[in-house]
Amino acid sequence: MTESNYWHLKEHVQVWDVSCQRQIEIVGPDAARLAQMITPRDLSKAVPGRCLYAPMVNAAGGLLNDPVILKLDDDRFWLSIADLDIGLWVAGLAHGLGLDVQVFEADVHPLAVQGPKANELVARVFGESVHDIGFFRFAPVEFMGHEFRAARTGWSKQGGFEIYVDRADLAEPLWDVLFEAGTDLDVGPGCPNLIERIEGGLLSYGNDITVANNPLECRLDQFCQLDADIDFIGRDALRRIRDDGPTRRTMGLFLDTADVPSVRDRWPVIVGDEAIGFVTSAAWSPAFHRGVALAMMEWGWWTPGVEVEVETPAGRFSATITDLPFEVPAA
Amino acid sequence: MTESNYWHLKEHVQVWDVSCQRQIEIVGPDAARLAQMITPRDLSKAVPGRCLYAPMVNAAGGLLNDPVILKLDDDRFWLSIADLDIGLWVAGLAHGLGLDVQVFEADVHPLAVQGPKANELVARVFGESVHDIGFFRFAPVEFMGHEFRAARTGWSKQGGFEIYVDRADLAEPLWDVLFEAGTDLDVGPGCPNLIERIEGGLLSYGNDITVANNPLECRLDQFCQLDADIDFIGRDALRRIRDDGPTRRTMGLFLDTADVPSVRDRWPVIVGDEAIGFVTSAAWSPAFHRGVALAMMEWGWWTPGVEVEVETPAGRFSATITDLPFEVPAA
Repeated sequence: MTESNYWHLKEHVQVWDVSCQRQIEIVGPDAARLAQMITPRDLSKAVPGRCLYAPMVNAAGGLLNDPVILKLDDDRFWLSIADLDIGLWVAGLAHGLGLDVQVFEADVHPLAVQGPKANELVARVFGESVHDIGFFRFAPVEFMGHEFRAARTGWSKQGGFEIYVDRADLAEPLWDVLFEAGTDLDVGPGCPNLIERIEGGLLSYGNDITVANNPLECRLDQFCQLDADIDFIGRDALRRIRDDGPTRRTMGLFLDTADVPSVRDRWPVIVGDEAIGFVTSAAWSPAFHRGVALAMMEWGWWTPGVEVEVETPAGRFSATITDLPFEVPAA
Repeated sequence: MTESNYWHLKEHVQVWDVSCQRQIEIVGPDAARLAQMITPRDLSKAVPGRCLYAPMVNAAGGLLNDPVILKLDDDRFWLSIADLDIGLWVAGLAHGLGLDVQVFEADVHPLAVQGPKANELVARVFGESVHDIGFFRFAPVEFMGHEFRAARTGWSKQGGFEIYVDRADLAEPLWDVLFEAGTDLDVGPGCPNLIERIEGGLLSYGNDITVANNPLECRLDQFCQLDADIDFIGRDALRRIRDDGPTRRTMGLFLDTADVPSVRDRWPVIVGDEAIGFVTSAAWSPAFHRGVALAMMEWGWWTPGVEVEVETPAGRFSATITDLPFEVPAA
């Protein structure tokens, strides 16, 4: 199931009901200040229409979540997240700081269209103007007289859009129209694919990243502007971590087994008797014909090509460290 | 299943794995101040060893959750909740207010022992001293050389204890010892029972109460000390609601049907064409031989004995307003 879904996603186009992805809206005179306060990502130059993948951290630099922030307007933002909550953190901050904002969960339910033919399908339904929507940008698109926001984003590496459905009565008509328009594109229903997102190095909050992690060790450096002239929670902690140097790092592993069990408890990565990391996600990759895994590796074990071992519920397997996203290793 | 479980819970004793009930720990010099800030319940006179059912509200008086607060020490509290999160709200407040506290999820997994024979079973395992633990109090109990906290609490009206298991390796031994010691008491595994908790008027966060409700309309007046000399979020809003008088109220309903569907979307309560409330939880009651429901009823519809109608997915049924908890109506 996961494997056939994988090939379909990589070759055709899928429609995903990702209404579990919630939008925490921040609106009001202090909205921009609060939005900046919760992430080390520099939002100061972002214009309305931008989507920004934004790690959120606490005062210790621990990751609270990793939403996509949609800047709807200068005083209005959505934090788009699929795992755990984050609205209560933001609401608590706003109250504690006495900020003039409202924080609430908006009644908006995303529908993702993902895959190499997503561009073509979305253009058929909403018109050619969608080609002008840049990567991690959103723009209004018209459907049955209503304007949805369509963003060139999504939790796969295959390209596509997320449609922010803010009219529940139009959700089923939209679904039907996408399927009617995409018959010859082999459109199908789908959902985020474990194999594809591991290969692409997409991290899952609660699995690969938790509050015990900081964004630097999770390779989210490019989303942390620690020296920018912005005010955010956790800056001192993250600067300290950067200056000391991270002590561990998210890496890829190729696993030498055809039978990759589900990761429930983390699997130790070992060399001899020494634990040098742990696997947080793993799957069999039909593209590489090996297991692929995300692992948090101790300092000194960040070199692609190095051989290690992984202790799984199905036995101990040899593994090879690799960089992310996964690429076919040189022969 | 729900019905046989209901009778077993009301006649014997059950052990519930309620490890989904999480403990948010607040500890530090400002812990008492923060704990008081998040609830209208007066904590000022509570001594360590108290468990306090405590509505938590936002600045608008909307219910954020309804944990049991365990006062572990003058500067250390647990918020014990089973639905949604609340730690992020408390952590956000603490950060925004610059308070000197730590807020985190403690590694503690409650095991509930509930039912009329719970007292006997818990005494057999932990000793006769458990009889001295008062209602909504906790005390240390010894098990295999370790001290657990045992509280005379639980999400049923049948009496019993919750054991706060803070040693995961002792959880299975404790489970086994409870079952060995309770064979002649007809001990069995169980879980919160929908019928029993509706009859008892126990509200479920996310079902019967949400952020759109205030504690006064949910009959939680006794847990809101609005005139006490304490500082908490939402006091102005709750005083205003009290002074204006609540406009709706949680009531019980007897339903005249033997076939009570599951409540997914709320069911309208109607008289003629007028909607006068909505049902939030419902079940068939084998004790009353009628349906029992919790409903949020508009002002003017709070009189026990009044006949109304309820629109369910299985049809429209006549119903009778009743007080909570449910009692057999006078003939």
